[in-house]
Amino acid sequence: MIREMTKSDFESFWSVFSGVIQAQETYAFDPDMTSDEAYHLWCEIPLKTYVFVDNGVVSGSYYIKPNGMGPGKHICNCGYMVADEARGKGIARKMCEHSQQQARLLNFDAMQFNSVVSTNEVAVQLWQKLGFNIIGTIPKGYKHGKLGYVDSYVMHKQLRTHSECL
Amino acid sequence: MIREMTKSDFESFWSVFSGVIQAQETYAFDPDMTSDEAYHLWCEIPLKTYVFVDNGVVSGSYYIKPNGMGPGKHICNCGYMVADEARGKGIARKMCEHSQQQARLLNFDAMQFNSVVSTNEVAVQLWQKLGFNIIGTIPKGYKHGKLGYVDSYVMHKQLRTHSECL
Repeated sequence: MIREMTKSDFESFWSVFSGVIQAQETYAFDPDMTSDEAYHLWCEIPLKTYVFVDNGVVSGSYYIKPNGMGPGKHICNCGYMVADEARGKGIARKMCEHSQQQARLLNFDAMQFNSVVSTNEVAVQLWQKLGFNIIGTIPKGYKHGKLGYVDSYVMHKQLRTHSECL
Repeated sequence: MIREMTKSDFESFWSVFSGVIQAQETYAFDPDMTSDEAYHLWCEIPLKTYVFVDNGVVSGSYYIKPNGMGPGKHICNCGYMVADEARGKGIARKMCEHSQQQARLLNFDAMQFNSVVSTNEVAVQLWQKLGFNIIGTIPKGYKHGKLGYVDSYVMHKQLRTHSECL
């Protein structure tokens, strides 16, 4: 159900992706980016990109990449998107759990989200349930499409104990 | 004394830059990156890159760029480097003050540093004196060349009041 994303998967997912960025409620991505720019950002820059396939339909996708270089490369960063019509099925949870397994396989020590929009309560609560902590608040960090400037959160989960990663 | 960086400035600054990244005490950059990769990262990706020139010598440099895209593009990010032999002359302070002026001219509302290494006390204290707040702590966010895993800070300064940016 979860496998690596192909170029053709991305093409069928583009309508979801462009809807998400145009809404300007969750991602700090240019709402006017082209499909090629989005493919580069979502599938080429990251280490790995996966899709969640439900009855043959690409219902969700996520990427995983290092959050920094060199002395910051032990923490990874992920981003998740789910199609509107596939909400409420636990797809984000399944992708996040899968991403944590992948992160461990890829030898990351922790996972960090750099800007979780505070008004995206479903996401904030889900990440908290899955063990992520709010470790910082960026005041007015996000210009929400409907609500104007709202805070965003830095969220973090340690995936290995210090004794393992020291 | 502060002007835009040229390719030739970067070449004369490269020995400072490579020393900084090889020490692995401040930047989350690959310590083994080439001069071309560093030029791309420091001078091509950012919006603007400046040098601090002291008696004809490039003693410091900084870049400014948006910290996010689309709904996150109102906050900028900067990085500063000063040559070892030019420390204690207030060059970092002068560059940070200059960068805040540039940020306002470029219409940014705030400035954010994503990973200030907690053991870099001179920098942390200088940014605090210049009005930056620690808005988050990334546990063991940085693998220090001498000290192993240490915390890093997210630091932030609002440059315009909310009424101006709403």
